[in-house]
Amino acid sequence: LETELVSHKKLSNYNPDVIFLGLPHGISMEFVKEHQNAGYKIIDLSGDFRLSSGEVYEQWYNTKHIYPEGIDEAVFGLPELFSNDIAKAKLVANPGCFPTGAVLSLAPLVKNELIDNQHIIVDSKTGVTGAGIKPKPVNLYSNVADNFTAYGLKKHRHTVEMEETLSSQTSDKVKLLFTPHLLPVDRGILTTTYSLPRKDIQEAAIKRLYADFYKNEPFVRITNTIPDLKSVRGSNFIDIMVAYDERTNKILTVSALDNLVKGAAGQAVENMNIMFGLERDAGLKHLPLKP
Amino acid sequence: LETELVSHKKLSNYNPDVIFLGLPHGISMEFVKEHQNAGYKIIDLSGDFRLSSGEVYEQWYNTKHIYPEGIDEAVFGLPELFSNDIAKAKLVANPGCFPTGAVLSLAPLVKNELIDNQHIIVDSKTGVTGAGIKPKPVNLYSNVADNFTAYGLKKHRHTVEMEETLSSQTSDKVKLLFTPHLLPVDRGILTTTYSLPRKDIQEAAIKRLYADFYKNEPFVRITNTIPDLKSVRGSNFIDIMVAYDERTNKILTVSALDNLVKGAAGQAVENMNIMFGLERDAGLKHLPLKP
Amino acid sequence: LETELVSHKKLSNYNPDVIFLGLPHGISMEFVKEHQNAGYKIIDLSGDFRLSSGEVYEQWYNTKHIYPEGIDEAVFGLPELFSNDIAKAKLVANPGCFPTGAVLSLAPLVKNELIDNQHIIVDSKTGVTGAGIKPKPVNLYSNVADNFTAYGLKKHRHTVEMEETLSSQTSDKVKLLFTPHLLPVDRGILTTTYSLPRKDIQEAAIKRLYADFYKNEPFVRITNTIPDLKSVRGSNFIDIMVAYDERTNKILTVSALDNLVKGAAGQAVENMNIMFGLERDAGLKHLPLKP
Amino acid sequence: LETELVSHKKLSNYNPDVIFLGLPHGISMEFVKEHQNAGYKIIDLSGDFRLSSGEVYEQWYNTKHIYPEGIDEAVFGLPELFSNDIAKAKLVANPGCFPTGAVLSLAPLVKNELIDNQHIIVDSKTGVTGAGIKPKPVNLYSNVADNFTAYGLKKHRHTVEMEETLSSQTSDKVKLLFTPHLLPVDRGILTTTYSLPRKDIQEAAIKRLYADFYKNEPFVRITNTIPDLKSVRGSNFIDIMVAYDERTNKILTVSALDNLVKGAAGQAVENMNIMFGLERDAGLKHLPLKP
Repeated sequence: LETELVSHKKLSNYNPDVIFLGLPHGISMEFVKEHQNAGYKIIDLSGDFRLSSGEVYEQWYNTKHIYPEGIDEAVFGLPELFSNDIAKAKLVANPGCFPTGAVLSLAPLVKNELIDNQHIIVDSKTGVTGAGIKPKPVNLYSNVADNFTAYGLKKHRHTVEMEETLSSQTSDKVKLLFTPHLLPVDRGILTTTYSLPRKDIQEAAIKRLYADFYKNEPFVRITNTIPDLKSVRGSNFIDIMVAYDERTNKILTVSALDNLVKGAAGQAVENMNIMFGLERDAGLKHLPLKP
Repeated sequence: LETELVSHKKLSNYNPDVIFLGLPHGISMEFVKEHQNAGYKIIDLSGDFRLSSGEVYEQWYNTKHIYPEGIDEAVFGLPELFSNDIAKAKLVANPGCFPTGAVLSLAPLVKNELIDNQHIIVDSKTGVTGAGIKPKPVNLYSNVADNFTAYGLKKHRHTVEMEETLSSQTSDKVKLLFTPHLLPVDRGILTTTYSLPRKDIQEAAIKRLYADFYKNEPFVRITNTIPDLKSVRGSNFIDIMVAYDERTNKILTVSALDNLVKGAAGQAVENMNIMFGLERDAGLKHLPLKP
Repeated sequence: LETELVSHKKLSNYNPDVIFLGLPHGISMEFVKEHQNAGYKIIDLSGDFRLSSGEVYEQWYNTKHIYPEGIDEAVFGLPELFSNDIAKAKLVANPGCFPTGAVLSLAPLVKNELIDNQHIIVDSKTGVTGAGIKPKPVNLYSNVADNFTAYGLKKHRHTVEMEETLSSQTSDKVKLLFTPHLLPVDRGILTTTYSLPRKDIQEAAIKRLYADFYKNEPFVRITNTIPDLKSVRGSNFIDIMVAYDERTNKILTVSALDNLVKGAAGQAVENMNIMFGLERDAGLKHLPLKP
Repeated sequence: LETELVSHKKLSNYNPDVIFLGLPHGISMEFVKEHQNAGYKIIDLSGDFRLSSGEVYEQWYNTKHIYPEGIDEAVFGLPELFSNDIAKAKLVANPGCFPTGAVLSLAPLVKNELIDNQHIIVDSKTGVTGAGIKPKPVNLYSNVADNFTAYGLKKHRHTVEMEETLSSQTSDKVKLLFTPHLLPVDRGILTTTYSLPRKDIQEAAIKRLYADFYKNEPFVRITNTIPDLKSVRGSNFIDIMVAYDERTNKILTVSALDNLVKGAAGQAVENMNIMFGLERDAGLKHLPLKP
């Protein structure tokens, strides 16, 4: 990091109510550690405080965690599952872009113990801003345009974030295989999940379950048509469709969100709204830009 | 179809050795029926002669098959699996673009009985030329660019083509869930498959198995890096990578091909080369256009 | 047109204040003629009422004008030049997307008689939504992506719209050559103009002139850096830069706007705001979506 | 440059007939100077030997030229104009991508003294590979996709290359205004030129002139339809169309080429073929990849 971290002293002059951290992982924890006793709340967009412990963090991020106490304190900022905790939190770990889509897609199934938690496949496709704005071969125009590929096979850090968050909704630990792919678009994530039912199910019943699960959620739209990126582009919405294939006895979901809004900055604002008792959609009312 | 089918009489004047049919399904069978006793060979790029029977065809295509005898006669034109039969065939059913990628990705596993044939997931992403060149909302620029979605959930016709072709390689019938997605690129298909091992396996052993399985195939490149569309763009190559995730006990494959070459016209030429004893890669030597 | 025009009678039930017409040219004039005595105002987005007379219209549109009285009544809805007239208008002809960019780029030069009005070049590049949403070969994804071309050489209808509007600002008739090009983007128009100074000029003076000319305009941003499409994407802004090349004695301008907002629907709303005494930017405050 | 230049000694071991230099400008001249007495021929793809003198070079490149003798010796490698000289050359300066398109578009007009050489406009639009493969903000996917802009206004180095090459075809010095724009495509340049006729002309006569001028050129296709990038993509062709607009008395041309082939490596091979008496299209027979 080229710029030095702003010191607590300097920040205090501004007397802020809340700080949004858009720092690389490993740097965020330094900031949070230094500022732990400040009066303001923190919403951290890095991966530093999303996992369950310093050990798990070190295992997936190959970095020692210098402030595990922060992990204990932090609330995972996925409003659809944790809004009560977020409302009282001093430190919110804003979820990763992929976990937001995958967890919201699967939570109704996991919480209701409808699927085998050992055989979940998460196949995601993301726009290139997921790789940051620092120019490098992976986000060079002529490498991305007309192209498509998978990456981070078997070991992408968002895997454990999905597993731990979903596991928190059930007594039966979730283990899943997550495969991200890189799309030639600037923003947006579409996630397709596959899972095996534990018992006899009907498509209509699952569809009702999803509609019911999210019925009070302003940014989740349960759809009957297949979600696509342009329908959420620039907005804080996540569109989710669930289906059951009787022929192969599989449940599949398709979800779409904008990784820069619901997958990052929009969700951060949503968390702030909850933390400060504001309207949930304050500053987040913009519609998708389509086409 | 606006244009009438060329009559057998007219075609005979040209005394062709082989005819390539680029007709819609349902029309191809009319042509083949009428021309069944002609001296020339036929390579049909439609879906009319790829399946096992008129009944299966009617079930997936919602069209009565008027020439089921052609189905019995036709050879499925996937050279890597059926080159001996292709060499002697009078009628070749050129494979669909998705089945070419999926079957070549999974054949080594199925033939060697390494995976559970009831739990295979095929998640494919295709360029927009897969939808044909007739302008319609689905291939309109402003609907495709910046966008990504799934389609044909649970009932895409290529599903049964994959299942039957893979089942022909083993005694244990294959049933799989196939989900196609539409990419904002003009050409190319990337297919990711997920399957469950039947027994204890090692990644290195599976990688060797793949290299060995295709060691004499000029157009299959088994790679250690993850395939991408640009590496095969404009060429007849298919790149395949296999991996094993010990953590979740899943096998995954990623493959890439150009749907207009190995997925259609290129493979048709490859079949012609085999049928006429020509060099396998005659007319197919062009390298990928990258970038 | 498949759907019949809504009759005046039916519309009256709704007692509207204003009607926006998004009809093809030739159909709009039928509607306006039928509804001429209705109480509501009309903002027409077609080309039917933008030109100076029925004769000129017929010459460029190859269509007889059935309601030339409407032409006399209509006000050209370019707020930066005609806001006083728009405020009093009953019928507003919303400008074409290309003329909006070209006229605002050149108006300060023409009005101040700085350039030779016989040697103006307008070279525009538009996103594909300019061609409408009806699928046809010209807006098919695989024809547009990776591609770029010119079209409508020498005879695009927006030529005369630019000429007449610019001519209205000076005593010396403007004649220009307009060449549109088709970009592989969904929305946005970038226009580059070239013209010859009539007298000695200085770049700094022209830059001041532009800043001054538009100093009270909320949607015109005079920039020192070169405008680009993403900086206006989804917004009602038009960015304009002017430069003088001493070496070749040419003035050039570069401007960018979103053809679906400032080039169409956004400007229509802006006109409504003026006609009804609302805030000029009511409903038009959204920022560009970048990236 | 990180890697050191290969010494003459090392290269001699390979006993090459010809060397292609793909070095940055400023570095190429070092190589050429060091290797000036070697037995092999050199085709240099940098800008170091394309201009008329060290002074002109320093003026446009802001770099001192360390080997102006090379400039005197070098032949400008545009086969359509200089094939006789290229055949005898020891050092060929392969043309820039923009000059190739602009010069071939305008040469028939300039050579035949049909236009005013002081009022030529060259408006070019290039794919992003023109900016090289080193990742930087200007070729970052999310800055290029959905975007379009101009750059290098008034001072792009290819301006002088166009002017000097065109001036070599006539006694009346050419001065032109060149404006490059950046397209969201990986490869391809489309150039539109505007010029003023010196005398009365007819469109049909100019079209015949172009057809005649290039009638023996294997890679120039004079077209009646407007050129587009996809029609030349991946090939060594340049398509050129000329038109005359009677209404404004302007001549316009539109040309398309692939900047990586006819605009760079393909033309370099073409030059080698001429230098060694090979077939002009040896290694250059590949057709455009369309779509």
